[in-house]
Amino acid sequence: MSDTLKADALKYHAEPQPGKLSISLTTAAETSRDLSLAYSPGVAEPVRAIADNPEDAYKYTIKGNLVAVISNGSAILGLGNLGSLASKPVMEGKALLFKRFANIDSVDIEVNSADVDEIVKTVELISGTFGGINLEDIKAPECFEIERQLIEKCDIPVFHDDQHGTAIVTVAGMLNALDIQGKKIDQAKLVCLGAGAAAISCARLLIAAGMKKENLIMIDRSGVIFSDRGNVNQYKAEFANDVTEARTLAEAIQGADVFLGLSGPDQLSAEMLQSMAAKPIVFACSNPDPEIKPELAASTRDDVIMATGRSDYPNQVNNVLGFPFIFRGALDVRATKINEEMKLAAAHAISDLAKEPILDEVVQAYGGQAFEFGKEYIIPKPLDPRLLDRVAGAVARAAVESGVALAPLPDRYKK
Amino acid sequence: MSDTLKADALKYHAEPQPGKLSISLTTAAETSRDLSLAYSPGVAEPVRAIADNPEDAYKYTIKGNLVAVISNGSAILGLGNLGSLASKPVMEGKALLFKRFANIDSVDIEVNSADVDEIVKTVELISGTFGGINLEDIKAPECFEIERQLIEKCDIPVFHDDQHGTAIVTVAGMLNALDIQGKKIDQAKLVCLGAGAAAISCARLLIAAGMKKENLIMIDRSGVIFSDRGNVNQYKAEFANDVTEARTLAEAIQGADVFLGLSGPDQLSAEMLQSMAAKPIVFACSNPDPEIKPELAASTRDDVIMATGRSDYPNQVNNVLGFPFIFRGALDVRATKINEEMKLAAAHAISDLAKEPILDEVVQAYGGQAFEFGKEYIIPKPLDPRLLDRVAGAVARAAVESGVALAPLPDRYKK
Repeated sequence: MSDTLKADALKYHAEPQPGKLSISLTTAAETSRDLSLAYSPGVAEPVRAIADNPEDAYKYTIKGNLVAVISNGSAILGLGNLGSLASKPVMEGKALLFKRFANIDSVDIEVNSADVDEIVKTVELISGTFGGINLEDIKAPECFEIERQLIEKCDIPVFHDDQHGTAIVTVAGMLNALDIQGKKIDQAKLVCLGAGAAAISCARLLIAAGMKKENLIMIDRSGVIFSDRGNVNQYKAEFANDVTEARTLAEAIQGADVFLGLSGPDQLSAEMLQSMAAKPIVFACSNPDPEIKPELAASTRDDVIMATGRSDYPNQVNNVLGFPFIFRGALDVRATKINEEMKLAAAHAISDLAKEPILDEVVQAYGGQAFEFGKEYIIPKPLDPRLLDRVAGAVARAAVESGVALAPLPDRYKK
Repeated sequence: MSDTLKADALKYHAEPQPGKLSISLTTAAETSRDLSLAYSPGVAEPVRAIADNPEDAYKYTIKGNLVAVISNGSAILGLGNLGSLASKPVMEGKALLFKRFANIDSVDIEVNSADVDEIVKTVELISGTFGGINLEDIKAPECFEIERQLIEKCDIPVFHDDQHGTAIVTVAGMLNALDIQGKKIDQAKLVCLGAGAAAISCARLLIAAGMKKENLIMIDRSGVIFSDRGNVNQYKAEFANDVTEARTLAEAIQGADVFLGLSGPDQLSAEMLQSMAAKPIVFACSNPDPEIKPELAASTRDDVIMATGRSDYPNQVNNVLGFPFIFRGALDVRATKINEEMKLAAAHAISDLAKEPILDEVVQAYGGQAFEFGKEYIIPKPLDPRLLDRVAGAVARAAVESGVALAPLPDRYKK
């Protein structure tokens, strides 16, 4: 990050007032009469209505459009465990993105605890306040258990974006990359470097999208994950590959079609890239420094499709392509959860949009650079306004079709 | 409440969208550059700054202007225990009042628990998110212990408005009523009917303001509270009056200067009022139906000053005269708590404002009815715009003077 960007970022957060969010009123609150409706005595009416029928909370309060962004700050961006308070700018930023991209009202809640049970209990007890819960920047493996328990205990969608948002956007890009390289997902061989929350969720969704489990090799700090290796937690064990003899990245990558990096900088060497199959795909998503620099990849071979987590290279795998619209769709049909069908529907909708001609306004927004579907444009741009209805609509339809929607499909989402 | 008001209140909460609040962005979030400052990668800078110096959370996030309105719905308005979800319209209403009257950003959090330890733990763990905590509509005696523990555990102000807000506004009005009736607070005899959260806090603040403990008789459902009565919890025991022989309201009220009702409808009969001292003061604050109807009081004797909790009679004891400005003052000097000095300062500031000539705009706001200091105008009107600086300033100065302020007094509050 440049010094200018650093200084601008601090200024952006300090002015015109501290932070990025504020509360606005959506109703009149000027006169004595207004206040008697908003508060005592009028407010007793919606209170009684909700006491009689809890569903009325969606009619008379903000609940149905309100998402909590919840973190304990144990895995902030690429910065690590800096504590719950330090995560607040990120969580307010996430709330800003929810509003900016999907008109979802969102508030951040920082939970000052590293204990799974404490976090689960806290979020469970306050969950009625909200229409959905976005978990964020909670480290693995705690994040898996926290999410699992909260999904079980809450009657609203609970979604750990670092896992599923990343997976959805990764799969969206991957489907197009495979398509352009002429590879079939059910035959492609993939090496996933990294075995954290994002990696495990990506692997699950890739398999749900058609990839064969035996074609997926997951690698952590100790090397390739296989059943008898030891030091493999239950989440990683799900992806133990007992077919391959490979034990290192250098061995596993030979002949692979796809490299998916969710680990750290400069892990994939030119030699390793050279050893991959023809027309390889490299998703080097470590941020800010990818597993292989795009310049090095391009100079090593010219048949590669490359994606990163950065906005200054083509094909940015950016979660903002997913979570605002996924929650929008889920909230709009009162989905009780965000299931695999909804995640896959979101991935396909994002993927499909990249194949359509780009809008002039999007070209303008990115400095006049035109994009067309191909090696350097496999994923839509975040400022593409079509994302909202496309992705939210796909998610809402999938929720209705898979039976987790409590409200009917809004007309605007009907195909 | 009229049927029209009921219907209007439901409509007010349902339109133009469910609820009364939304989130707004205070910074630009349009371009790719904006987003790189608001979120990744720029947001890493305020994160690092806060990790290095937690105080920077007040510089780069909304924390310093953000108050959580927290309830478990166990004592909603006069409606009782209807559960946490049903309390949401009230808590959103409170947040609306914070914004409307003091430009404080406020979010409601409903905690679905009746257990003191669970509630304390939950609020403690999320408290870092906020600059202050307003507890609301939590039943006694749990509310005392919840507040006590949270004040101890949190480094931000924790304030149970049903106790202290009510007490502050009651004392504000009482000081003026005593003044107008020519009574001294250190000689006045008061009977408090009700021994819940508000009554106990009122009694404490009246004593802090100069009332003699032996001149205060508190009465609960079992009659006058005295030491050996039995069935007296530790909070009520603080006000056991062992001087009087009186055991019932009818006995206790004879010759009393002040009746303070925080109980239920029609508890004070014309005969009881008749038996009070000359120039009595009756605060009949049960809502919506006071302990004695103002019409009955007026027809019983013409030397009485009467206040209620209702906006359709003179002298409304309305918490909105207090809490927005009390928190404004506390936040503006980063007070670590709201102590007795600050509460008394708020009461005196509210009291003093009623003695000043009323503004034309306030007269207009209340339908052209002029008020001047006297029996029918002992407390300012909620729409008086001078409340903000007067009360917040008094609270901020008291915080600085009593040593609980972490930031200096803003110039606008200097006298």
